[in-house]
Amino acid sequence: MNSVVILVAANEILDGVTLDTNSQWMINRLKPLNYTVTETITVRDDTAEIAKALNRMIDDGVGLIITTGGLGPTYDDMTLKGVAEAFSLPMTVDPDALAIVRRQYKVFYEAGVVDSAEITEARRKMAMFPEGAVPLDNKAGGAPGVMLRREGALIVSLPGVPSELKWILDNPLMSILTDRAEGSYTEKIINLTARDESMLAPLIDEANKMEPDVYIKSMVKSMVDNEKGYVIRLWISCHGEEMEEIQRKVDNVADFLVNLAEKTLT
Amino acid sequence: MNSVVILVAANEILDGVTLDTNSQWMINRLKPLNYTVTETITVRDDTAEIAKALNRMIDDGVGLIITTGGLGPTYDDMTLKGVAEAFSLPMTVDPDALAIVRRQYKVFYEAGVVDSAEITEARRKMAMFPEGAVPLDNKAGGAPGVMLRREGALIVSLPGVPSELKWILDNPLMSILTDRAEGSYTEKIINLTARDESMLAPLIDEANKMEPDVYIKSMVKSMVDNEKGYVIRLWISCHGEEMEEIQRKVDNVADFLVNLAEKTLT
Repeated sequence: MNSVVILVAANEILDGVTLDTNSQWMINRLKPLNYTVTETITVRDDTAEIAKALNRMIDDGVGLIITTGGLGPTYDDMTLKGVAEAFSLPMTVDPDALAIVRRQYKVFYEAGVVDSAEITEARRKMAMFPEGAVPLDNKAGGAPGVMLRREGALIVSLPGVPSELKWILDNPLMSILTDRAEGSYTEKIINLTARDESMLAPLIDEANKMEPDVYIKSMVKSMVDNEKGYVIRLWISCHGEEMEEIQRKVDNVADFLVNLAEKTLT
Repeated sequence: MNSVVILVAANEILDGVTLDTNSQWMINRLKPLNYTVTETITVRDDTAEIAKALNRMIDDGVGLIITTGGLGPTYDDMTLKGVAEAFSLPMTVDPDALAIVRRQYKVFYEAGVVDSAEITEARRKMAMFPEGAVPLDNKAGGAPGVMLRREGALIVSLPGVPSELKWILDNPLMSILTDRAEGSYTEKIINLTARDESMLAPLIDEANKMEPDVYIKSMVKSMVDNEKGYVIRLWISCHGEEMEEIQRKVDNVADFLVNLAEKTLT
């Protein structure tokens, strides 16, 4: 399995000021490549907390760790310090990262966004990398992404600003993720009307026996949506080697459930 | 500190089908009571993963753990099994929980939502509690909330359906959370216009020295929002004993930053 953990460093999320939409966006980019996100965790902007979470993931054997947030110029952006602490690495200015920061501030200066293209201490901070890390280009903001291979894992650090995170993932990172990916994934979401979610349980049990590889999740979409009862969203998914085979299995289960639900639940 | 961890058990979130909005909603309910959420973690609907996460939190000395999701009638709702496994407790039908389930299905039956008020195996599952747990009433759905005290921690399990989670937290749970709470919290969010977030770093450093208890977080709200530059949202918050005192500190910092930003950044 291509397992992934997403580690978010963001006080503003843990204090309810910001809603994390980055994680869902990334999951939906990773899913078609057959990556499975096994955990998302949000911790405070705290070097020790970030390092502790990373060490636990490495111990758990996670292959790909993506961190978001905490790459900016201000004192409370400390994700890279956390990465360095986790792997006992010194922090040094990475020349390639500094070239990206320099180029971006030149662009911002020429666009009139900043007063000067000078590389201040705060801006240089964005090129302070854990030793051995390499930058991922960022044309949507000032802070490059960061990629580090350690103890069998790939650790990718992305900014928290959604436009920057998305640009880096869709551009320099996408081909790296695609190269690492293996196997196929497919899914189908169907809506059934049922008088009660509990009446659906035995039907799902039967479908599970029919295709044990297929995962079926029922979610109550709304309470008493119409006069017939609840709308229940059924999400049917499968991981495997061959796309054709898993597609067939998912279609089988979906057809079976739709037919059975029509007969027994309404 | 009144520390809280939120543990979400939800494949549908880790597979990108659903966006978790429950956590932010809960954080904003807990914050005025001076609770600090130190971590949110989402794991798969897997008994062992849920138990492992809970054991880690207990080891970390977390005082309040709130789980969401996985209390429903279907086979993949396994949060309570995870709680039972974490604390090596047997699962038994709780008579008070069963009375709530029974009452709710009677209500649903009388409203014509379900065909029968019978307590089927799937419905009885919602009253299968780890031994020693007590139910929290739920008038918005079928599954009661669950509360367990173990090893110095209070573990509260809430359903994942937002309307049910909100009802339980705002009704039976709120007075319990209020009784446990200590101290005061206040916050203020201000928007500054600055040419660049990196220019703000030295100002924040100065404000930090002035009021070390006050936490200042800068967040880029939008890239180049107007001709003057970026809009940067500054969030200024403080925990403490006396509301009057922390209010004064937060106001001090906000006034200081607004004045300084007007002079130096625009």
